[in-house]
Amino acid sequence: MRLSVHYDVAIGSRDEAKACSSSECTVTLLRGRGLSCSCRGGGNQEVLDVSDVVILAIPFKHVRQTIEQLSGFEGKIVISPVNPMARSGHFYYDPPAEGSAAEFIKGLLPEEARLVTAFNNIAGNRWRAIDEELDYSVAVCSDDEDAKKTVMDIVNSVSRLRAYDAGPLAVSSIIESITPLLLNIARFNKMKDVGVLFR
Amino acid sequence: MRLSVHYDVAIGSRDEAKACSSSECTVTLLRGRGLSCSCRGGGNQEVLDVSDVVILAIPFKHVRQTIEQLSGFEGKIVISPVNPMARSGHFYYDPPAEGSAAEFIKGLLPEEARLVTAFNNIAGNRWRAIDEELDYSVAVCSDDEDAKKTVMDIVNSVSRLRAYDAGPLAVSSIIESITPLLLNIARFNKMKDVGVLFR
Repeated sequence: MRLSVHYDVAIGSRDEAKACSSSECTVTLLRGRGLSCSCRGGGNQEVLDVSDVVILAIPFKHVRQTIEQLSGFEGKIVISPVNPMARSGHFYYDPPAEGSAAEFIKGLLPEEARLVTAFNNIAGNRWRAIDEELDYSVAVCSDDEDAKKTVMDIVNSVSRLRAYDAGPLAVSSIIESITPLLLNIARFNKMKDVGVLFR
Repeated sequence: MRLSVHYDVAIGSRDEAKACSSSECTVTLLRGRGLSCSCRGGGNQEVLDVSDVVILAIPFKHVRQTIEQLSGFEGKIVISPVNPMARSGHFYYDPPAEGSAAEFIKGLLPEEARLVTAFNNIAGNRWRAIDEELDYSVAVCSDDEDAKKTVMDIVNSVSRLRAYDAGPLAVSSIIESITPLLLNIARFNKMKDVGVLFR
């Protein structure tokens, strides 16, 4: 997996020790491959304070509490890869009344936060396989065109990911709902960590 | 484009002359390439009567009237490639109260009809490009496991299409909603006839 642009990365957690341990693990893994990286861990507020771009990589059920305990989102680009879903035999999309996780998050953030939906349809296991390429399409949507462009550049700098502009934030529900579909396809066809390509 | 299994195809329309003209056009195009095919046109009821598998290739707004004018769906496999959607700047998914076109269609058909959702995410233009391969994934869902298997075999017999079992009919809303997403991606990224691959 390649990062062709240099970013300073900070991993946040409610549990600062956990974030630091994840960060150290990342640095060690990359050093073992002769690569350097800028990565550190910290508490959520501390990490938010020093970040220009924030990725809310948390389950939907923890979104409200996490955001309400933090302040200072104004002016920052906030990426939602959050997929509200449930399971009853098969996986299904289970959005809040706002229509999508992204639109729910929009209501929790200050107006000046720049919300972008991205990275929703890539399995966690694929991110952890750092010796393999990530060869997927990433649908990106937002009501803030400049923030969307910045996030698409970030997407395109990771391995073989390709970003596609999917339109305004209202498209989030479709992008989020693809994840339970991919989980069903994995399950019913005996596949693992299924992703998506648009072409 | 290859059909590796031989099917007898009948094209139905409210306008029988139109169906016959489409059929003749298909036969002529294939003969010009040294290929034979079994294809004929007819009125909708006549075509339904002789078919084991029926593909409802009609816009969502015509679904109710078309089905209500026909009888004899009992025991037949009915494929819904129907995607209810609308546009307001961007394309969005616009399902009926039943949750999806497929579940709406289920309410119109007799209980003995065997409904399967398939072929939703392939652009019409790609079907018409008969000298090119169709290299896409096709999500298939149904509450009738045998009917789903039959439809997956049909999918896998067409060009390079690959069928994926996506679970029960309730998954239809996700599959249908991918089509407006693909239309947005085509529009906002200056692409044409975008399709989807799962992998």
